[in-house]
Amino acid sequence: MTFTPTADIDAAPWTEDEFVAALRAQGTRYHDQHPFHVRMNAGELSREELQRWVANRYYYQRSIPIKDAAILSNCPEVEIRREWISRIIDHDGAEGESSGGIESWLRLGESLGVDRETIRSERLVLPGVRYSVDAYVNFCRQEPWVFAVASSLTELFGPGAIKVRLVALEEHYPWIDPAGLEYFRSRLTLAPRDAQYALDVSLERCRTRADQERAVAALSFKTDLLWAQLDAIDRGDTRPGAEG
Amino acid sequence: MTFTPTADIDAAPWTEDEFVAALRAQGTRYHDQHPFHVRMNAGELSREELQRWVANRYYYQRSIPIKDAAILSNCPEVEIRREWISRIIDHDGAEGESSGGIESWLRLGESLGVDRETIRSERLVLPGVRYSVDAYVNFCRQEPWVFAVASSLTELFGPGAIKVRLVALEEHYPWIDPAGLEYFRSRLTLAPRDAQYALDVSLERCRTRADQERAVAALSFKTDLLWAQLDAIDRGDTRPGAEG
Repeated sequence: MTFTPTADIDAAPWTEDEFVAALRAQGTRYHDQHPFHVRMNAGELSREELQRWVANRYYYQRSIPIKDAAILSNCPEVEIRREWISRIIDHDGAEGESSGGIESWLRLGESLGVDRETIRSERLVLPGVRYSVDAYVNFCRQEPWVFAVASSLTELFGPGAIKVRLVALEEHYPWIDPAGLEYFRSRLTLAPRDAQYALDVSLERCRTRADQERAVAALSFKTDLLWAQLDAIDRGDTRPGAEG
Repeated sequence: MTFTPTADIDAAPWTEDEFVAALRAQGTRYHDQHPFHVRMNAGELSREELQRWVANRYYYQRSIPIKDAAILSNCPEVEIRREWISRIIDHDGAEGESSGGIESWLRLGESLGVDRETIRSERLVLPGVRYSVDAYVNFCRQEPWVFAVASSLTELFGPGAIKVRLVALEEHYPWIDPAGLEYFRSRLTLAPRDAQYALDVSLERCRTRADQERAVAALSFKTDLLWAQLDAIDRGDTRPGAEG
């Protein structure tokens, strides 16, 4: 169930431990539990399904710096912006270089047999994927920045899922060039750092029970959209005239 | 007069030279022509007026990274974002450092006798200044990023104005510690680089007469708000109970 805030105005704040536990509890709804990722890890996906996945999740990857810039634009505090901006640079890469998370994702696509121009054209992106990701960007544009930060706490669950995925991809899909998996390897370093910072900010800034619950709801919303994205990828293109 | 687009749908695009000339023509409306800056340059401002100016224009300075992050968030092109992000870093400073344009502005305030806590509290910021600057941030949030970029072309006019201002401040206001003027000195290097990039983007992306005129209108809007900001600063606080 999506977490719904219920605190009345007089509810006592959670202790720090209770708040962290409520956030971590959302991990049971993380998309590594989705049937598509379960099948990926079991080696049951076809090449075509992996290609559909990589081309569609590109839309999420390419939207990450846009949502992080929205958070930056909503945050009036220089100290927070100085930290948060590194996420944009991590994904976009530095000026004049061909690097960064988006570039790594394009290379992953190539290693799965989808050329970068096809991916970048976004013509394989399914409407359901687009709507899920756009909902996330709009959330980060419209919500106070603290709750947008809290929504990023899926990073708490990412590394565990990625470790399993990396082993599974190498074991079950030997046709994938291991060099193409660099995106996931770099996330194993970056995600814990990012998660810790976002957790510290959430704990420091959400002091009332209402704000704490709103932070949990933001994270719950985030797990929902990752799940919905994967539902759409799993289902594939069912539109009249779709090629498959 | 504020520039108003009038091109009908069949109007031929301006040549590159004509477009640049139309943009540069907005320089005659730049706020270095405002009576307040004219008086500043003539050595006629009181200490109190300079203090009012520095405390109020802080609100503009502190909003610049927010508007630049809005542009970033509206721009789907990695290559552009990789360039534009340097503006945010220039103003916010790098992580763990006490530097950047906002910090330099606070030091300018100190050299004019306004302590940084007073400036950062924003309690001296006049409503008219706030509305002008907020109009700019909202413009950059809502307009397509190309026109928000064009609105930044006041940087074309900045260095000339700053050169005159630096000389005038040092000559007419010897009580100002010259170290406090670092903000303006650094703009002499950064502004031409930023202006050239924004000009290149504007020329490359505005190819129809309608888009060219919209870019000129964006710049005209920007000169309007800088002017309105200075009107409010010049007038001062006229509210009942204001201290002067």
